[in-house]
Amino acid sequence: MEKLTSVEVTTLLLGFGVMLGLARAFGEVFNRFRQPAIVGEILAGILLGPTVLGALAPGLFQQLFPAEGAVALAYHAVITLSVVLLLLIAGLEIDLSVLWRQGRAALLISFLGTAVPFAVGFGVAYAFPGFWGVEPGTDLLTFALFFGTALSISALPVIAKIMMDLDLFKTDVGMLVMGAAMFSDLVGWIVFSIVLGMMNAPASAGGAGGHGGGMSIGATIGLTLLLVVFTLTVGRWMVHRALPWIQSRLSWPGGVLGFTLVLAFAGAAATEAIGIHAIFGAFLVGIAVGDSTHMRAQTRTVLHQFVTYIFAPIFFVSIGLEADFLRHFNLPLVLGVLVVAFLGKLGGCLLGARLGGLSRRDGWAISFGMNARGAMEIILGLLALEFGVIREDMFVALVVLALASSIVSGPLMNRFFARPRTWKLEDLLNARLFVPDLEATTREGVIRELARPAAEAAGLDAADVAEAVLARERLMGTGLGEEVAIPHARLDGLTRPVLVVGHSRQGIDFDSPDGKPARLIFLLLTPRRDMAAQIQIMGQIARLFRQETARRVVYENDSVELVRAFVKIEGAPEPVH
Amino acid sequence: MEKLTSVEVTTLLLGFGVMLGLARAFGEVFNRFRQPAIVGEILAGILLGPTVLGALAPGLFQQLFPAEGAVALAYHAVITLSVVLLLLIAGLEIDLSVLWRQGRAALLISFLGTAVPFAVGFGVAYAFPGFWGVEPGTDLLTFALFFGTALSISALPVIAKIMMDLDLFKTDVGMLVMGAAMFSDLVGWIVFSIVLGMMNAPASAGGAGGHGGGMSIGATIGLTLLLVVFTLTVGRWMVHRALPWIQSRLSWPGGVLGFTLVLAFAGAAATEAIGIHAIFGAFLVGIAVGDSTHMRAQTRTVLHQFVTYIFAPIFFVSIGLEADFLRHFNLPLVLGVLVVAFLGKLGGCLLGARLGGLSRRDGWAISFGMNARGAMEIILGLLALEFGVIREDMFVALVVLALASSIVSGPLMNRFFARPRTWKLEDLLNARLFVPDLEATTREGVIRELARPAAEAAGLDAADVAEAVLARERLMGTGLGEEVAIPHARLDGLTRPVLVVGHSRQGIDFDSPDGKPARLIFLLLTPRRDMAAQIQIMGQIARLFRQETARRVVYENDSVELVRAFVKIEGAPEPVH
Repeated sequence: MEKLTSVEVTTLLLGFGVMLGLARAFGEVFNRFRQPAIVGEILAGILLGPTVLGALAPGLFQQLFPAEGAVALAYHAVITLSVVLLLLIAGLEIDLSVLWRQGRAALLISFLGTAVPFAVGFGVAYAFPGFWGVEPGTDLLTFALFFGTALSISALPVIAKIMMDLDLFKTDVGMLVMGAAMFSDLVGWIVFSIVLGMMNAPASAGGAGGHGGGMSIGATIGLTLLLVVFTLTVGRWMVHRALPWIQSRLSWPGGVLGFTLVLAFAGAAATEAIGIHAIFGAFLVGIAVGDSTHMRAQTRTVLHQFVTYIFAPIFFVSIGLEADFLRHFNLPLVLGVLVVAFLGKLGGCLLGARLGGLSRRDGWAISFGMNARGAMEIILGLLALEFGVIREDMFVALVVLALASSIVSGPLMNRFFARPRTWKLEDLLNARLFVPDLEATTREGVIRELARPAAEAAGLDAADVAEAVLARERLMGTGLGEEVAIPHARLDGLTRPVLVVGHSRQGIDFDSPDGKPARLIFLLLTPRRDMAAQIQIMGQIARLFRQETARRVVYENDSVELVRAFVKIEGAPEPVH
Repeated sequence: MEKLTSVEVTTLLLGFGVMLGLARAFGEVFNRFRQPAIVGEILAGILLGPTVLGALAPGLFQQLFPAEGAVALAYHAVITLSVVLLLLIAGLEIDLSVLWRQGRAALLISFLGTAVPFAVGFGVAYAFPGFWGVEPGTDLLTFALFFGTALSISALPVIAKIMMDLDLFKTDVGMLVMGAAMFSDLVGWIVFSIVLGMMNAPASAGGAGGHGGGMSIGATIGLTLLLVVFTLTVGRWMVHRALPWIQSRLSWPGGVLGFTLVLAFAGAAATEAIGIHAIFGAFLVGIAVGDSTHMRAQTRTVLHQFVTYIFAPIFFVSIGLEADFLRHFNLPLVLGVLVVAFLGKLGGCLLGARLGGLSRRDGWAISFGMNARGAMEIILGLLALEFGVIREDMFVALVVLALASSIVSGPLMNRFFARPRTWKLEDLLNARLFVPDLEATTREGVIRELARPAAEAAGLDAADVAEAVLARERLMGTGLGEEVAIPHARLDGLTRPVLVVGHSRQGIDFDSPDGKPARLIFLLLTPRRDMAAQIQIMGQIARLFRQETARRVVYENDSVELVRAFVKIEGAPEPVH
């Protein structure tokens, strides 16, 4: 086989070393300021790309990242694999059942939070094509469809990261935002795959096909829809049947890892072959695999960690190599994109939240959560750039939109969730509401055991309380990691939060991200209308138990009084505001 | 940047999907027969390569794995990154202190097990160059050095895998073999990097340099030695100082993962630039990073799992793509290589074992362990092929050597460790030797606490027993995973094994591969001369506690009688034979 020369291998290794090093360093700095790492990673790419390094040291830049030849092709191959894996894990995060079970408010937010920005984008594209820099040769329908999709899509990984940073990930509001974002992403990608087919086969009228193997646009769209339906029904079912066998019979986690990656590569190859991009196939495979309840949390973790910390940074850095962000920075265009994108997304989500009966403040908070864009936005832009649907300045504007919306999302969500009344953990802890040695040995048993004192304190029926908590638990396990779990429910007829603490010697599986069984279980009941109370209390517990001393006090003493004393002495960390 | 076309991306994704899928499938099948996965992965490659697929369906083969052009270059880039990562984790496994502390027998086995096969290879190369297919144009000294190295090098990952399969990994004999193999690998690679420099700069007499940037052979060798010394002293110290900061301040495990990979890429680029292969730099970085006691087991695990199950299979499959294994199968050459390789390695190790005072049977068992070759052998062969030092038929012979020696290693080790007298777990368990609720909360404390009843039963001094066990524990934690640990020592003055069982409610860190604290701790003392007793008993415990029921019986009952009953009812699995 033809091989890279030694000099080319050296360049490639140095290039990846520099890309990964700078991306991780900037990612860490941004994490420190509670910003998504992706923002730092993209900025690192802008530094390494034509914008800064290319301007300051063009010789070095061209040596490290040559525009043509074997090294450029090799970079592209690795970056393509990276983004395929990134979309695979984005798909893994999508749990369709979460969305269906979220109820009316979530469905309204999902739908309007996707449809309104799409309509806004589509409309303004048709109304003012010149402003958006659509060139005469470009098909306006394709551009308008693209622009609508670009404004409506969310960024599941970024949103998930923000939710985790704010300790909202496993709360109701976190699930609601995640569910709605899943819907946006799924619909957005399906629409975009159709747009891609259109970009791909502009020659459907004119003869021989373009990029994608010369398929007609009808064939591409038909095959795409067929693939979506097949993967999410038959494919999903087959995966669900295959996983238990793989996990029990093959080496672990090698069996599942290999299986998942092989499916992802196959799906990616299939979508690339029918004329849409490889990443769409990987995304679909991710959904089909991730949806199976047989997929163990630990397998996800291994995939996640490697992709999030190695492949994703390489991809995000590569974005900065694509364009000169200063030369193509077109201020009116950037502002225009920001305004229509924010207005469309926030308007749609707010409308959905209000129609769904949420309070104004909750509506704003959720809308800012949904407004975060990131990887998906940029991948769309990159493809559109590659296919000639947009020019560099629109690409730069979309990257700025992704960065700006991700940066403001967290702080603004936080701001709208801050309320005058704050609940302190030590006021809720109570010796009567402490079960030092749980008898039950299953998750359901523990919840029922803790529901009895909780229901008594709240003046509710124990069976009803248990059912509500179990229903929530079925959506997503409430294990936080570090041996702590917080099963919870929002209930009608409560006037104030109720917190029961149980301690299990043997540990109970609560689907913790770290795979450890939970030994300290907090059952939390909050009034249905007060989303903020749940968020505050869960956040305090999560932050408290990130400290090892807190965990040790509890394990070694088995006494709620000591826990209370500890909470008072150490001071519960500041509530979210 | 220049990019792959859609068709090329499709080919690449399909290619990797097929490579990974077939490799994993064959790897699993071979694992099922207690054979190293690498054997299956290489056979999968031979099926996909010119030997089978290329002969049966040449059109399909050339489409999937084109010999030239962008796709070939892209494959090579990804395969290069894969092998760099593979050597990184091979390096991570090397703990130099293990070797130094193993004592006289290990040092003798290491040294003679490396020097004897090297001398044999070097000698026969000089004596019969024609038989080994050395062509007139080739430099005989280079070939002889290469051949000696190829015969002396071990395969740390394969040996580690075999030890794990036989439940020997954490026993004394496992440590001894691992330590000796580390020495072989380290010395082998240093010698080989010098050989590479010689291959690289054959023009040192004739003018302009070759592959490696035109450095003279003296410069290459000098820089190589400088790099080795620097990395293993200053570099190692710097990593050791940096890791705690990275692990506590940066995101986890992203900080360490990124740091390790960036160093690996940088080291790889450095060695590639000075004219030896990239993988040597990655290997050195692996040693420097892995040697640090601050490197957490869980970080290793994430790296390990991803590399072992994704990158390693891709690399091993690619070996089969390099040559037609039928056309270049030269039986006399294959037999010749097998005979000198086995004789040299077994002879050297046996000599070392006998001089080190081990019994004849232990010597044979250890020698067969050391004789396993795998990845390293093949990588050497691949490089020598690329640089024109050997031809395809020698490459094929080396691959066959790697496969054959790996296949026979496990069964033969097992055979020589089988002894007439077997110890059964239930005969060793005893209510007096059971501590139901350990008081100590540290690893050292628990060992001291368990050493008291053990010493009493054995008629030895408790402090001496504790010291021996602690000394062993410092070499490598004895946590097996699944909350079980087996601290152990071989002692003079014992006539039969002594086993004390302790149960810790809170769990004690014993460096388990799964990161879980150990709750069931077996302190095992065996007579110094009877290596097999230790191996048998540890193997039985390990196999028993792989069953979930066994663990549950113990945790829920806290009674040694129940454990005994359980062991009797279920039947301790067959002893190793």
